[in-house]
Amino acid sequence: MFNNFRPREGETVYLQVHDFLKQMIRTAALQPHDKLPSTREMVGRLGVSRNTIIAAYNQLELEGLIYSIQGKGSFVQEAAGPSVAAWEMNWNSRINDYAGVAEEMDPLKHGVRPERGMIAFSSIAPDEKLFDLNNFKRAFLDRVSIEGEVVLNYGYAQGYQPLIDYLRGYMESKGTDMFGKDILITNGFTEGLDLLLSSFRKRSGRILCENPTHHSALRLFRMHGFEVRGVAMEPDGLDLEQLEAALAEQAYDLAYLIPSYHNPTGIVMSPDKRVEALRLFGRYGVPVVEDGFSEELRYSGAHVAPLIATGGAGNGVAYIGSFSKILFPGIRVGWLAADRELIDALESVKRARSIHTSTLDQSLLYQYLHNGYFDKYLKKARQVYKSRYEAAVHACREHIPFVRLSGDGGLHLFVELDPAVDTEILLDQCYEQGVVFTPGETFYTDGGGRHTMRLGFSRLTEEQIERGISVIGRTIRTWEPANE
Amino acid sequence: MFNNFRPREGETVYLQVHDFLKQMIRTAALQPHDKLPSTREMVGRLGVSRNTIIAAYNQLELEGLIYSIQGKGSFVQEAAGPSVAAWEMNWNSRINDYAGVAEEMDPLKHGVRPERGMIAFSSIAPDEKLFDLNNFKRAFLDRVSIEGEVVLNYGYAQGYQPLIDYLRGYMESKGTDMFGKDILITNGFTEGLDLLLSSFRKRSGRILCENPTHHSALRLFRMHGFEVRGVAMEPDGLDLEQLEAALAEQAYDLAYLIPSYHNPTGIVMSPDKRVEALRLFGRYGVPVVEDGFSEELRYSGAHVAPLIATGGAGNGVAYIGSFSKILFPGIRVGWLAADRELIDALESVKRARSIHTSTLDQSLLYQYLHNGYFDKYLKKARQVYKSRYEAAVHACREHIPFVRLSGDGGLHLFVELDPAVDTEILLDQCYEQGVVFTPGETFYTDGGGRHTMRLGFSRLTEEQIERGISVIGRTIRTWEPANE
Repeated sequence: MFNNFRPREGETVYLQVHDFLKQMIRTAALQPHDKLPSTREMVGRLGVSRNTIIAAYNQLELEGLIYSIQGKGSFVQEAAGPSVAAWEMNWNSRINDYAGVAEEMDPLKHGVRPERGMIAFSSIAPDEKLFDLNNFKRAFLDRVSIEGEVVLNYGYAQGYQPLIDYLRGYMESKGTDMFGKDILITNGFTEGLDLLLSSFRKRSGRILCENPTHHSALRLFRMHGFEVRGVAMEPDGLDLEQLEAALAEQAYDLAYLIPSYHNPTGIVMSPDKRVEALRLFGRYGVPVVEDGFSEELRYSGAHVAPLIATGGAGNGVAYIGSFSKILFPGIRVGWLAADRELIDALESVKRARSIHTSTLDQSLLYQYLHNGYFDKYLKKARQVYKSRYEAAVHACREHIPFVRLSGDGGLHLFVELDPAVDTEILLDQCYEQGVVFTPGETFYTDGGGRHTMRLGFSRLTEEQIERGISVIGRTIRTWEPANE
Repeated sequence: MFNNFRPREGETVYLQVHDFLKQMIRTAALQPHDKLPSTREMVGRLGVSRNTIIAAYNQLELEGLIYSIQGKGSFVQEAAGPSVAAWEMNWNSRINDYAGVAEEMDPLKHGVRPERGMIAFSSIAPDEKLFDLNNFKRAFLDRVSIEGEVVLNYGYAQGYQPLIDYLRGYMESKGTDMFGKDILITNGFTEGLDLLLSSFRKRSGRILCENPTHHSALRLFRMHGFEVRGVAMEPDGLDLEQLEAALAEQAYDLAYLIPSYHNPTGIVMSPDKRVEALRLFGRYGVPVVEDGFSEELRYSGAHVAPLIATGGAGNGVAYIGSFSKILFPGIRVGWLAADRELIDALESVKRARSIHTSTLDQSLLYQYLHNGYFDKYLKKARQVYKSRYEAAVHACREHIPFVRLSGDGGLHLFVELDPAVDTEILLDQCYEQGVVFTPGETFYTDGGGRHTMRLGFSRLTEEQIERGISVIGRTIRTWEPANE
C-alpha cells in the first residue's frame, strides 16, 4: 500500500513523505491504531533514506497524527476533537474570467525567472542599496513622536491629510492647475489604475493607448474586459496621424498614456505633441489617464510638464503618480490627481474595497518628504542611475546591432532588432549564458514586437551592464548569421 | 461684477475669495492687465474683512495669476506658458453602477457623524490609547536592522514569507488543518473579501448570509451585483431550519458568515451549530467565506474553533483574518487562509491589482508578533475591553427597555427594541443630547431592523458608557410614552 509514492523534484523529501502518510491517514487508508511500518522497512518501500523517514515520523508525531510506543513502533492516532464536517470544493470551477486573465497574464507564473548570480535586465525596480535607511528611520521616529498612536489607527479613505496637502503642492509645482481637482491616495500606481477601470462605465468597451505599453496596464484592461487599440510610437511620442485616424474611426471609453519615460520605450513625448494630442482627445471627448510613473528620473534636458498640467484649467486628464520607481516601492503609496467629482466617487470605491492605504506608510512618506530627504535622495539616485543609463546606452551602441534604440531617461532602454530576430528564443539562449531581459512582445497590444526587448538597468553595476549587453550582442550576431 | 460672491460656511473665507477671483480670471471675466479693485473697495463689494482680501490677493500673486505695481494696485497677469489644451469632461456621466453603489452606501457620505466631545457608540475601531507604541518602535528597529533596505523594496504578491509562515502556524493553533491550504496577505479583511468576490464566477448571482450582517460586506455584495439572502439569527447563531429551507429553495454562489462575535449582534455560534451548518453547506455544495474579524476578543467561556477548523481536512471554507479590531488597523494587514488552488488564483489577482501589501507593514507586524508582544498586548486589551463590555451590558440592563440584548464579547452590543421604536429618529434625538450610535437597519439584508441599534464601546470610558447609555434609555422612554 506504500507503493505509489513518487518524490517530486525540488521539494523537501521528508515533507513529501509526511504529506503522503498524512493523506493516507486522512482518507482512512490508514486507520486509527494501525501500526506504521518501521523506519527500516519504509526505506525499502519508499526508496528514500532512513533519516528522511525518521524526520517525517517526527513531524507526524508533533502534529498529533501518530504516536509511538517505546520498543513497539509508531501507530495512527485517533482523530481528535468533535466530528468534523469536511467536504471538498472544486475551487477552480468557481473562478471567473477576470481571475483567469490575471493568472494567464501573470509574469511570475509564466515568464523566465533569473537565478541567483545571473545578470538580470528584467527588473525596473529601484536599487535598494541606494535607499537612505537612516533618514527613513529618522522620519519614522519623528512622525511617531508627533502623531503618537494615531499613525497606527484607522484613517480616511481619501488619505492622510498632510500627505494629500503635500502632493497637492507637488502637483502644482509640476505646473498642474489643481483648482477643481483633488487627490486620492492609493496603494501605488496599480491600485489607482484598477480603481479607475473598475469604476468606469463601459460604453464602447474600448481603450486607446500607446503601442507598446506597460504590460501591467494591459493586463488590467483585459481583466476588466476592455478591448485595446494601440497607436504607434515615434521618437517624440505618439504618432498623431494614427491617433487622429483611430479617434475618427471608433469611440473609446478612455485613453491611457505614459508621456514621460514611457514604459517600455523610454520615450518622452514632446511638449508640442502633448498639446496637440490633448486637443484631439478633447475634440473627441475621450478622457485621458496619465501614468506619471517615473517622471522624476530625468537625466538631461528640460523638465516637460505632465499632460494634466498641459490641460490647464481643463479636467480631462486623470493623473496617476507614484514614487515607486525611485523611493521605497515596498510601502505601496501612490496617488491620483483628478477632477474633484471623479476623486469623490473613487474615494467611496476605495473605502468599500480596502478602507484606506496604510496610515503608517502614508505618514512616514509624508515625514520623509517634509524633512527634505527626498530632494537629497533624488539627487544621489539620479547621479547613480544616470551613470548606469549612460553605460547601458554605450554598451548597446557598442555591442547590439539594433534597428532602433530608445530611452530618454528612467530605468530602462528599449531595443528594436532586425525583424528576423525572435527575442523569446534569444532570451532562452542568453539565459544559458546567465543573462536575462524582458522580450518586448508582452508590451504590445497586437501581438507585435517579437523582435524587441526591454533592458532594465536599475539594479545592475556598470560592469554588469557592459558584460550582460555584450553577451546579448554576441548572441544576436552568432544566432543570426544570415544577417551578417 | 463682484456681486455674486456668497461665502460658504465652514470653509476658510480668504480661500473662497481667492477661488472666486481665480474663476473670474479663468473664464476671462477678468482680462489680462485688468486692474483689480483696491482691497478697500473690495471690502464693500464682497462684504468680507480687508485682511481677508489682502490674504486672497497675496495668494493669487504667489500663484502668478496677478501682479502688483507699487502705488498703482493689482493687475491680472497674462496666461503663462504654451497655449494649453483645456477641455471639460462630465466625469459623473462616466461612473458606472459599481462606483454608484459605493457612493450610495458610503456611511461617511450619508450617516450622522459625531462632533467632537460627543459620546460616540458608532465606532468599533480599537482604542489607540491601548497600543504599545514602544514595543512597536522596537519591532521597527529590530526588523530594519535585520532586513535592512529590503523592507522598503518590492516584495511578492502572496506576502512577506516570515509573516505567511507565522500565520500558517497561527491558523494551525486555532485547530485549522492547513494541509492543502495556503495563506494570502491582503490589505485587511476588506480587500480579502473584495478579492474573493471579484474572482468568483457568478452562477446563481446569489449570496447567503446572516441577517443582520456586516454592512461593509453587504456593500461589496451589492457593488459586485450579487443578490443577498439573509438567514435570521438565534441566540446561538444561524437559524438552521431557515438555513436549510433557504438552501433547498435556491442555489447560492457562496455563503458569508461571521461565526464569532458576529457583526452586529455579537453572537458566537455554538460548536454544534457550526458542524451542522457546515454539513448543510457541504450537502448543497455552497462554499463558505468565514469572517474571523474579532475572534480574539473573547472575555469568558471556552475558545470556539473557527469554521475552517471545524471543516477539518475539507477545503470548503475560505477564512479571512484580521487583527484590525485589536492591533493597529492603520497598517492594513489581513490574510486569507483557504484552499491552495484558490489562493493561487487570488495571488495573481492581487498582483494585478495592487502588486502586494506594504512590505514594511507586513515585516513590522511579523516582528511584533515574533517578539511575543501580541500576547502581552492582547492580555492587556482584553482586560480593558472586558470592563467596558461589562459596563455596557450593565448600563443597557439598567437603562434600556430592550426586547433582546446580544453580544458575547468583542467591541459592541446589539439592542433590539420594541418594534414601535425607530432608531433613525431616536438617533436624531440622541444626537441633540450629544450621543450617537449606529441604527441597525444598515446591517439588514431586507430593510428590516429599524428598531435595532449597534452600540460600539471600544473607544469610550466606563463613565462615558454609563452616561451615554442612560441618555439613550431616557430618550427611548420619553419618546415612546405610548409604550410605558
